[in-house]
Amino acid sequence: MRKVFQEELQKVHEDLVEIAKLVAEALDRSVEAFTTADVELAQEVIAADARIDFLQTALDEKAIEILALQGPVASDLRVIVGSLRMSASLERMGDLARHIAQLARLRYPEKAAPEALEKTFARMAELDATIIAEVTGLLEDHNLERTSKIQAANAELDELHASVFRAIADPSWTGSPALAVDAALASRYFERFADHGVSVSRKVSYLVTGEWDGDNTSS
Amino acid sequence: MRKVFQEELQKVHEDLVEIAKLVAEALDRSVEAFTTADVELAQEVIAADARIDFLQTALDEKAIEILALQGPVASDLRVIVGSLRMSASLERMGDLARHIAQLARLRYPEKAAPEALEKTFARMAELDATIIAEVTGLLEDHNLERTSKIQAANAELDELHASVFRAIADPSWTGSPALAVDAALASRYFERFADHGVSVSRKVSYLVTGEWDGDNTSS
Repeated sequence: MRKVFQEELQKVHEDLVEIAKLVAEALDRSVEAFTTADVELAQEVIAADARIDFLQTALDEKAIEILALQGPVASDLRVIVGSLRMSASLERMGDLARHIAQLARLRYPEKAAPEALEKTFARMAELDATIIAEVTGLLEDHNLERTSKIQAANAELDELHASVFRAIADPSWTGSPALAVDAALASRYFERFADHGVSVSRKVSYLVTGEWDGDNTSS
Repeated sequence: MRKVFQEELQKVHEDLVEIAKLVAEALDRSVEAFTTADVELAQEVIAADARIDFLQTALDEKAIEILALQGPVASDLRVIVGSLRMSASLERMGDLARHIAQLARLRYPEKAAPEALEKTFARMAELDATIIAEVTGLLEDHNLERTSKIQAANAELDELHASVFRAIADPSWTGSPALAVDAALASRYFERFADHGVSVSRKVSYLVTGEWDGDNTSS
């Protein structure tokens, strides 16, 4: 019984890693679509999100089955409940990548990113890519040094997000209101992606150390 | 043992209802702050959100304790896991009410809502109020007729959300880019609030009927 249980737990863990890798791919492709106004690629990202949603549902069903059949307690129980929450965060990160692709599709053949903010968005995308890569690594190797990288990237993203709003409100902003809205939404999607990444990393830390340092997903 | 378990389940249920009522209050007050540019009220809503977050964490701890000590199976297990998810959705609805209050605080002494969209936002707020009232009722009485009201309100909200984006993109829009961004964000907060309400109502339906009709929280 114990062996079966450990195998099932291992399977849930592998599924989480697989979802994280699909999210990394979705982000990468949505950024490419957003940056180059590639409407076909945007369409592909949007369609591929269904796969992430499916895997999350399957993982959750598996986790609930383990709860029902094995009645885990203590740390095993927290791992299962933690997996349910991490899968929800990862699924949401996939949605946010999809939203970025949807912005690209909406504005095609124009670019959704205003020229004045191209560098800012490129940096935001890079930071999000770091975050999902580190989150995936953290799920795989539980090396907690990764969490400080994730938090540093998130802090820089928060700064950049605020700078986008300052740029839009500045009298020197010459873009249309619609372009301002696109920029604000894109910025928010990049920033929320990072928040969810931090949230996953905090859950891993908690499961590894037993210590909770709070959560800022909700901010 | 069984009696204790039912009492604990009942307690989780009451906590969910309490959180839903606090969310209804938060929405009501944030809309008032947003509509009248009442910065003090906005500040109160923002501060009060910590209480919702606290209750959610407490409910989740309680649910995990029940899983550990009682090892529920079948429908009881689904109720507990469903409660974890519903509490997350309700907490997120509280955050969205807080975000609306934060917009009001950010623009004070100006109003965050552009005059041309005042009626639209008033209707969106009304629909969200209907949704959280019906969600609270549904948690209390499990009367599934409420779900169609919730879905109808959500459909109207989606329409209004789209109309806000059309208004901003229209050449007749005369507001500043910053005002356009505020309007777009407010509209998104109202719309997401409704999505989470639908998500909670679907979970209640599922727990009552055993049938799942899908979920659109992620849209």
